[in-house]
Amino acid sequence: MEKICIFGVGLIGGSLALALKEKSFCKQIVGCSRNENHLKRAQELGVIDSWTLDPCEAVKNADLIFLATPVGAIEPVLSSIRDCITDQMIITDGGSCKSSVVSSAISALGQLPDRFVPGHPIAGREKSGVEYADATLYVDHKVILTPIETTDATAVTTVTKMWQACGANVQTLKVDQHDQVLAATSHLPHVLAYALVETVAKTTYVSEIFEFAAGGFRDSSRVASSDPTMWRDICMYNRDAILEMTSLYREKLNSLEQLIETGDSEKLFELFSRSKEVRDERFG
Amino acid sequence: MEKICIFGVGLIGGSLALALKEKSFCKQIVGCSRNENHLKRAQELGVIDSWTLDPCEAVKNADLIFLATPVGAIEPVLSSIRDCITDQMIITDGGSCKSSVVSSAISALGQLPDRFVPGHPIAGREKSGVEYADATLYVDHKVILTPIETTDATAVTTVTKMWQACGANVQTLKVDQHDQVLAATSHLPHVLAYALVETVAKTTYVSEIFEFAAGGFRDSSRVASSDPTMWRDICMYNRDAILEMTSLYREKLNSLEQLIETGDSEKLFELFSRSKEVRDERFG
Repeated sequence: MEKICIFGVGLIGGSLALALKEKSFCKQIVGCSRNENHLKRAQELGVIDSWTLDPCEAVKNADLIFLATPVGAIEPVLSSIRDCITDQMIITDGGSCKSSVVSSAISALGQLPDRFVPGHPIAGREKSGVEYADATLYVDHKVILTPIETTDATAVTTVTKMWQACGANVQTLKVDQHDQVLAATSHLPHVLAYALVETVAKTTYVSEIFEFAAGGFRDSSRVASSDPTMWRDICMYNRDAILEMTSLYREKLNSLEQLIETGDSEKLFELFSRSKEVRDERFG
Repeated sequence: MEKICIFGVGLIGGSLALALKEKSFCKQIVGCSRNENHLKRAQELGVIDSWTLDPCEAVKNADLIFLATPVGAIEPVLSSIRDCITDQMIITDGGSCKSSVVSSAISALGQLPDRFVPGHPIAGREKSGVEYADATLYVDHKVILTPIETTDATAVTTVTKMWQACGANVQTLKVDQHDQVLAATSHLPHVLAYALVETVAKTTYVSEIFEFAAGGFRDSSRVASSDPTMWRDICMYNRDAILEMTSLYREKLNSLEQLIETGDSEKLFELFSRSKEVRDERFG
């Protein structure tokens, strides 16, 4: 591959660039965003070969375009390159909500192009920015692709090979299924962590609380240190699936509160044992 | 010190024993519990010097008694040694809810003895059992002591020195303050994690969800792998403080759901930024 163009060179875009460079997957990686300082920094760090603020200049002669912006920026980026992309170019993205990416493509381009392969690497950190970009970020991580019926099979193969070159395991899900699975595994824990930090920040003994907060609180709240822009967009663009999960969650929390309220030690023990078993099976 | 007696030789009691042995803090450590196999295993592992199933035999000539059972077992243990303890013996414990420990002492012994220093090491793992006992568990961790007005100052000093010998930082809080602080920093995150695992276990795509669950879910749910008996007891014995926190939490979660529902991107961004700031200040 000659040229890859990356929109948004932060943790996700930057880590892809570093991994592909290490594998000599392509000859040239060009970065594009609205922030000149970020792009300069990315070039200084050797993450990209060159950069431009001009989207059409960026995609010129690109074999593949990777959209690594927050999901809310995907539609404006696609609109800005609408008249400069060709049918040969493969487009893919790293957005956490796939139905919103498909809708954004339809709004900006009239349809999801056949060579647009929606994708989502299941990797990340609570740290954002190109300074944290890491060639090994995707090693042994899953990448979910969500092609639709009309998506070109060779484009899917190319995107699959790109992620495999980064050490990732590529799997395919339907768009809706992806969004429901991610709402449960990732979006729900983020919303809960934000609510947890909010709760504790408003209590009487807040300074003592933070002083005595140990490993349990640290881990339970870790994802509340994530990038606020990214998570604002995810909450906006995967709204329905997230609200479905928070609603289920509230039911479970209410039941658990009932058991605590009534002091039902037997049912509490059963619930805690079942939860431990389920979690240990996956992560134990 | 000649002899320390530990009731409940699991992660917490076993780690104290190992640390004190390493520092030659006392000559002899005797274990006692209702489970012969656990005690045998603890002796095999070199955690305790000897053991007995007889509580009165265990405390005979002890300088210090450490209660490391789940909080629900503290009252029966105290009742079982009621007639065998002397005024000289120092008693302390590792229970996560201090008002319940004080009440248990009053029920079992008629009062909180002057040389009973309620305590709580803020250390633990999601793994329980003597196999995980570790002499370094308390190094650089906080231990909270909650003496009451009548508590003997020299007993507090001795218990403080014991924990300092394990590398811990000892601090003092009032009983109620401890229970409120712990409800927020530890008990609330545990309840939320149990509810999270329950929620996900009941969704349509449960196998995909666990397959694609990554770091965020793993960390957010970690404490749901904790010991069910211990957490059943904590929920029973710190009920009011926990329910106060879950109630506050539900308010915050409801507000957050409202913002997602109405798509209030500005307020979502503010809330996420504030949470990130608060958490980064403590753990960043």
